[in-house]
Amino acid sequence: MPRLLLPLLLLLLLLGQLSALLAPRRRRSAPPPSPAPYLTRYLSQQIDHFGFDENLTFQQRYLIADQHWKKDNGPILFYTGNEGDITWFCNNTGFMWDVAEELNAMLVFAEHRYYGESLPFGNESFSDSKHLNYLTSEQALADFAVLIEYLKETIAGARYSPVIAIGGSYGGMLAAWFRMKYPHVVVGALAASAPIWQFGDLVPCGAYFTIVTNDFKKSGTGCSESIRNSWNAINHLSSTDAGLQWLSNTFHLCSPLKNLQDASMLKSWLSETWVDLAMVDYPYKADFLQPLPAWPVQEVCKFLKDPSLSDKLLLQNVYQAVNVYYNYSGEASCFDMSETATKNLGQLGWYYQVCTEMVMPMCTDGVNDMFEPQKWDFDALSEECFRLWGVRPRPSWVLSMYGGKNISSHSNIVFSNGGLDPWSAGGVTQNISDSLVAIMIPDGAHHLDLRSRNPCDPKSVKQARVLEVHYMKQWIEKARRKH
Amino acid sequence: MPRLLLPLLLLLLLLGQLSALLAPRRRRSAPPPSPAPYLTRYLSQQIDHFGFDENLTFQQRYLIADQHWKKDNGPILFYTGNEGDITWFCNNTGFMWDVAEELNAMLVFAEHRYYGESLPFGNESFSDSKHLNYLTSEQALADFAVLIEYLKETIAGARYSPVIAIGGSYGGMLAAWFRMKYPHVVVGALAASAPIWQFGDLVPCGAYFTIVTNDFKKSGTGCSESIRNSWNAINHLSSTDAGLQWLSNTFHLCSPLKNLQDASMLKSWLSETWVDLAMVDYPYKADFLQPLPAWPVQEVCKFLKDPSLSDKLLLQNVYQAVNVYYNYSGEASCFDMSETATKNLGQLGWYYQVCTEMVMPMCTDGVNDMFEPQKWDFDALSEECFRLWGVRPRPSWVLSMYGGKNISSHSNIVFSNGGLDPWSAGGVTQNISDSLVAIMIPDGAHHLDLRSRNPCDPKSVKQARVLEVHYMKQWIEKARRKH
Repeated sequence: MPRLLLPLLLLLLLLGQLSALLAPRRRRSAPPPSPAPYLTRYLSQQIDHFGFDENLTFQQRYLIADQHWKKDNGPILFYTGNEGDITWFCNNTGFMWDVAEELNAMLVFAEHRYYGESLPFGNESFSDSKHLNYLTSEQALADFAVLIEYLKETIAGARYSPVIAIGGSYGGMLAAWFRMKYPHVVVGALAASAPIWQFGDLVPCGAYFTIVTNDFKKSGTGCSESIRNSWNAINHLSSTDAGLQWLSNTFHLCSPLKNLQDASMLKSWLSETWVDLAMVDYPYKADFLQPLPAWPVQEVCKFLKDPSLSDKLLLQNVYQAVNVYYNYSGEASCFDMSETATKNLGQLGWYYQVCTEMVMPMCTDGVNDMFEPQKWDFDALSEECFRLWGVRPRPSWVLSMYGGKNISSHSNIVFSNGGLDPWSAGGVTQNISDSLVAIMIPDGAHHLDLRSRNPCDPKSVKQARVLEVHYMKQWIEKARRKH
Repeated sequence: MPRLLLPLLLLLLLLGQLSALLAPRRRRSAPPPSPAPYLTRYLSQQIDHFGFDENLTFQQRYLIADQHWKKDNGPILFYTGNEGDITWFCNNTGFMWDVAEELNAMLVFAEHRYYGESLPFGNESFSDSKHLNYLTSEQALADFAVLIEYLKETIAGARYSPVIAIGGSYGGMLAAWFRMKYPHVVVGALAASAPIWQFGDLVPCGAYFTIVTNDFKKSGTGCSESIRNSWNAINHLSSTDAGLQWLSNTFHLCSPLKNLQDASMLKSWLSETWVDLAMVDYPYKADFLQPLPAWPVQEVCKFLKDPSLSDKLLLQNVYQAVNVYYNYSGEASCFDMSETATKNLGQLGWYYQVCTEMVMPMCTDGVNDMFEPQKWDFDALSEECFRLWGVRPRPSWVLSMYGGKNISSHSNIVFSNGGLDPWSAGGVTQNISDSLVAIMIPDGAHHLDLRSRNPCDPKSVKQARVLEVHYMKQWIEKARRKH
């Protein structure tokens, strides 16, 4: 869920940059995904499940793979798609492919409305707040419920198939909420790295960045200190034109820095890079957001051993470090600060969601974390959202709707979290009841457990997956006894 | 919930009459309600909880009575208002007033949006489908959730008050659904006479009218047979102008019958009268829909002992019978067929709900019931709804949303049903689990248990109330142990 943070961080550090997203931008092409043997299908869905005035429909895309499915009501593993192209999540959720045979399961990957090809109003979907009005988690969950009922009615032998929701990041939040709100549709949910408590004042707003900082601290002597010192180094240099020029050259920026605001953007871009690195600090070479080496934070930290260097030497090292993230393939000729994570995520849609329902308070203090101090500024977010779309965020709504920490009456949800993952700050990391279970993966980054098996997997993630399959079998078995 | 049926019955028997509701109509004045010691309050609510484009609000009315409330987090009994003026429900839900002291409970009665004073767009609320677009059960439940959170935040000592949802009829459906969807807001629900299964094909469409018929069959020899024979008697007479004139005079109609369509309306009006009588067949003199004697169906049946009479004699008896319902007070000079139950219910709003979410299939066969055979005709409903408001009903949505019969994973709901109440046909009348409990009241009509204690109460309703209080105490106790 890199984009969960991105808008927040941008808003946190540099209000106004959000609007840059509204302009068209050049994108790097992503490496082709490894083809998975699935069929692509579309279902006609109500654009507005909760109102009857406009009776419009759109085509929701979903992917389906039944190679291992036992036709006599074998289970269905249902990926609750999040803020991006569903094929990308399909190809990055190897866990589901790995366990399909053992569970005799059909796999379904449902695309979230307003992302990928599932655009309610085609090219007009993002044109204004009227067209964006149906981009909410509630509408997305309703799509999932209707889709599952359609599949059970139309696929021979699926009438009584127990369905398990699986998702990671925002998709994990959706999986958990789906089980909470539609327990008649899914018998259980695996919510991987799902920060369902990163709302209101449920968790301290600084916890997220403290985890990022700890990842860097653990990954190399002097590493987090170097980053903490880099901000002032940038501040010093950006106070003169020569310094700005030097920064532009040193960081190989495609567009040179012209003023303090540009320098501020450089700091945002760097901050986001460190955050993204913490999220994808996987134990093997991987290509989730970017092609990266194994344990990329350690790789980055190799360049950041000495925090006491002079400004310029320190920042030259910082450049070497971010180079690991943006240029591991060696193909980049210059860096475009408007490009950070991956083109597979729908930034504009997610920004809108942050501007409405998904208000996740974040802050830094520069003491418990390695970032420049920045208070959580709801009013600034609200103003920016109003300026962009004429909408105001309603931070309390998601708590009213999904219950905040008061969720103990629900059942059959596994919350998995990685100890390295900053999103674990807002996750459920302790058991709530016998059937609301937390699984910690101390060596894991952002939903490592949902990725394909890998020889370099730490023991903790292997154990987590075993436990996850154990619970899924339990839910399936219990559902089977009912019929 | 008389109006739950009314629109269906009208549509069933006489398409087109629905549109008459759109015209202004004269209303009888209801007897003044006995004043209950409550305060009237208003809360600003989002008109659209599920979208952010229009950020409009309206004032939701609620009534609050804290005479018996224990300020140190004593419980709150929360009436989930249904399709009418909340003061009327407040004054007809004596059970809550009767148990407030024993439970040290605060009482709150929340008005359902689009009814009573809680009109989102004032006088424009019903003007077209744009303004009606926010009249859904989901929006109403969201209002309730937001209101409860507001009360807990603003009333000193209510922070950890356990809240129990209570409702009857459609309000009972809302109470049950509220616990299902917002278990973090209410610790349990008492759903009285709530036909949550009167949807899709969950129950036979004819069961409702079979119960009405059985009530009349049990209440007097020849009674249901007389009514069954009355339809053909009307058909015979209405084939001539003289017969129509005779019918108009005999039934003291304010507007004389002019053609077969008017005669059809007479039959609808009579059918609805029998149905309403079955619903309010209470064991004591009462004034719920109309002022009525004790066991009104028995009173009615005193006039309907001989089904073998000639057409005219039979219909003269039918007139005497309906006179019990419409003229128990002796004040009516003529009968207006457009007035049936009570002015306290919001007919137009409920019709719209029937035309969108609340599609409850109903049918008669004339064999298992005493009515003229009539198949369930969804297409006719859909056409009528489209003609009136440009909306189409979505009969499967309520099943997708609330789970149909697949609700066993929920908890802490008591479903009470009266054996005399036709709505018990669509109710939960058998236990689903230890905490989804059915209470049958064989001698009870429509939510008799929610009415005030009465010396004539049958033992079954007294026992039901004892059990209901027992469960409520259990929920309160369990919630208390958490804090």
